[in-house]
Amino acid sequence: MNLFMTLGLAASLLLCNAAGMALADNLESASTPATQPRQVILIIGDGMDEQQITIARNYLKGAGGQLLMDQMPLRSAVQILTTEEKENGKPVYVADSANTATSMATGAITSTGRISTSAGTDKDFTTIVELVAAAGLRSGIVTTASVTDATAAAFATHISFRLCEDPDTMVDVRYKDIPVGDCSGDLKANGGKGSIAEQLVESPLDVILGGGNDRFTPTAEGETVSVVDLARRQGFQVVTNAAQLASTVPDKRLLGLFSGGTMPVRLQGEGGREAEAPKPSWLNQLHPYVGSVTLPAPMVCEPNPGFNAVPTLQKMTDAALHHLSRDNNRGFFLMIESASIDKQSHERKPCGSIGEVEQLEEALASALAFAQEHPHTLILVTADHSQAAQLVPYESLYAAFPIPIYTPGKIARITTPEGGQMAVNYATNSFKQEEHTGAAVPLFGNSEALGRIPPFMQQRQIFTITRDYLGL
Amino acid sequence: MNLFMTLGLAASLLLCNAAGMALADNLESASTPATQPRQVILIIGDGMDEQQITIARNYLKGAGGQLLMDQMPLRSAVQILTTEEKENGKPVYVADSANTATSMATGAITSTGRISTSAGTDKDFTTIVELVAAAGLRSGIVTTASVTDATAAAFATHISFRLCEDPDTMVDVRYKDIPVGDCSGDLKANGGKGSIAEQLVESPLDVILGGGNDRFTPTAEGETVSVVDLARRQGFQVVTNAAQLASTVPDKRLLGLFSGGTMPVRLQGEGGREAEAPKPSWLNQLHPYVGSVTLPAPMVCEPNPGFNAVPTLQKMTDAALHHLSRDNNRGFFLMIESASIDKQSHERKPCGSIGEVEQLEEALASALAFAQEHPHTLILVTADHSQAAQLVPYESLYAAFPIPIYTPGKIARITTPEGGQMAVNYATNSFKQEEHTGAAVPLFGNSEALGRIPPFMQQRQIFTITRDYLGL
Repeated sequence: MNLFMTLGLAASLLLCNAAGMALADNLESASTPATQPRQVILIIGDGMDEQQITIARNYLKGAGGQLLMDQMPLRSAVQILTTEEKENGKPVYVADSANTATSMATGAITSTGRISTSAGTDKDFTTIVELVAAAGLRSGIVTTASVTDATAAAFATHISFRLCEDPDTMVDVRYKDIPVGDCSGDLKANGGKGSIAEQLVESPLDVILGGGNDRFTPTAEGETVSVVDLARRQGFQVVTNAAQLASTVPDKRLLGLFSGGTMPVRLQGEGGREAEAPKPSWLNQLHPYVGSVTLPAPMVCEPNPGFNAVPTLQKMTDAALHHLSRDNNRGFFLMIESASIDKQSHERKPCGSIGEVEQLEEALASALAFAQEHPHTLILVTADHSQAAQLVPYESLYAAFPIPIYTPGKIARITTPEGGQMAVNYATNSFKQEEHTGAAVPLFGNSEALGRIPPFMQQRQIFTITRDYLGL
Repeated sequence: MNLFMTLGLAASLLLCNAAGMALADNLESASTPATQPRQVILIIGDGMDEQQITIARNYLKGAGGQLLMDQMPLRSAVQILTTEEKENGKPVYVADSANTATSMATGAITSTGRISTSAGTDKDFTTIVELVAAAGLRSGIVTTASVTDATAAAFATHISFRLCEDPDTMVDVRYKDIPVGDCSGDLKANGGKGSIAEQLVESPLDVILGGGNDRFTPTAEGETVSVVDLARRQGFQVVTNAAQLASTVPDKRLLGLFSGGTMPVRLQGEGGREAEAPKPSWLNQLHPYVGSVTLPAPMVCEPNPGFNAVPTLQKMTDAALHHLSRDNNRGFFLMIESASIDKQSHERKPCGSIGEVEQLEEALASALAFAQEHPHTLILVTADHSQAAQLVPYESLYAAFPIPIYTPGKIARITTPEGGQMAVNYATNSFKQEEHTGAAVPLFGNSEALGRIPPFMQQRQIFTITRDYLGL
């Protein structure tokens, strides 16, 4: 019996035991109330598809290395469903973070841009945070984006359009001066629940940590105070830097807002460089089979100087776990998002995305350490949708041909710590921001996931799995 | 206990039982020789990454549907490793079908273009077909490409460069008149083993089915007869159409060559259309923020008229399974490749790739039916590397902006049978053929795979898992 066979046997035993334990556990919870607190930690890498994971793995661990998520005992794939903006609409094949977070938070399928509301009919879907709170469990959201950004928002708020993040962005919402939407119907004056920021501070969430301070400074609708004052009125302690985060009162609700909008990322390209367009010679511009091309110079990734000003995703995760678990015999639900894997990919910044996968890995390490001490902890790691970045050959497959062969989009050439040369292509459009893509995304689970997660599932099942694990 | 919980329990039990059985089985094979024949069926979707699978699923089964591979009980991800063309070279982050098939066939890592030979030193690696034959088991390869193409070749031949497929393409190999490589050192006259076609007919393979007839008509090196005559001399019956395939002699080795090169694919775009470049207006060519763009008209996929001339991948699979299993108390190894998922993606033909995923699914159905009757059958389905195609938004995420936003590459817009609109982007280069990409690929296994396959593994482990399952 060789080593691999021995490992195979060990894996069989482990799998069997884990499944057996899960089974006993399920039977127990089905017949009697759980005596120990249960918690679900859902970690979302925004836009973290297989291309992004492989790019990050190559840089952080080497081509043959393993990330922490690679070492988790369960791996599945998640089918992402989106619909047109009308009742019973046809499927749409590429999602955004609003409708995907809605699926994970509520078990429902909706249209892009919507936050836990229904396509066409604008009805509210009950979120996992609402269910958890009703059952007396705690809940928290942690993100490197603004806490009012789509992914976090969908877990605790309901609004027709994701960019209605604060009281000042409810009517005739504009992005770079272009009208992009409107939430007049969601104004409190019109019988709605108000902006995402207002809904967050009025939600049952116990912990809210991330960026987005600018979203809490406007005056709350129908009030004379700002949204952050409203938060204090709701019993939140408010912190805005790492030092304050380290000395919070444990028994009080926690709102941490560490930057105006999206938090600074860990890594950047050398000198802030991003993917750049190849530069063809004038001859090559006349005909693609002649002349030459100058590709962007190779670079390494370097620390982003702005990153030190904010707590890491891991520090926020640790604080959230501490607050949610302390003197808690009922359990909790915690959503943790590494948001800028996606945002940096939109901006064609592969080093930025790599650093944010690293941040996710550190948060996962904290979650796994927590689960060691708290056995009834289900940890799920997944992405919400796929993204634009592609790992492409550094030297074309057709390099033997004596003509310039290069991307029509933008490319970054990165020298990895192991001395390899990695090329990352962005070519879904020529706009300032790349598009998402539609591939299914991976899902990883800890031992508590064994026997509970099928090898392929719909994204909305993340809601039902969470709900059932918590016995709700 | 709700339905999902019930399903979860059932899954736990299944998993536990399957793992338990696998364990008992392993123990048995470790202590006593297997009394029943064992077989491994390895199904490779060339270039079949998550994007390709999702694109095919959307078209064939609908956005919320499931492919047959989605329903398999085991899902894993495969890390693909490639090295520079020298001993102890640095990693290369994007592979080709030659070095990846070498990893699956031999357990070794090599450089692109190599067929079961070592990077830099050109040593032969022992293949699974050679091991299987030495132990008295049968073996076969089935592919929709030429049987001399890289994926099939690596399982039974050894050569320094993948394009040395027949005796006439050994010296100064050219592709479209461009010199791309040379296999002089592999000539029999120089102590080598000859071309891939010659090596195939001299290999221990019992079944060889696919395209590539043109590779067997040249005169064999040092002989006065063609390679196909050499095959007959080696005991092969040779068939060239579906009718002949249906009436082969069961107890004789089988060489089926059903087209000159790659076999025709099942589906094509309407009127043979492929992905096309958007056409910007002259104003938009002056500045990206003005003017308009005309995108390619939507289309459906239609049958490729040439497809009926050849047996389907499923028919070839059925014939191979029949030949390999009949009166066989020792078992077999069978590699089945749906090759043109990749080839059609290189040519920016999404309908072609979709149809070849469908062909793979049908071959898988045959394999699963075979396993029902032959319990000691391990079925693995995987891809060799990722590809260029991306499922992108039909309407840009930024459609609210009043400017034309479109791919810098080429795009196909496909109306799906469920009435959705799917856009597939190809933009890794502007050459005649797209590049591969570097993401890890999925692997699916039947119940025999449970407990034997970790959730994440290196591609070369497919070799060790196969070897160990067959008790070699």
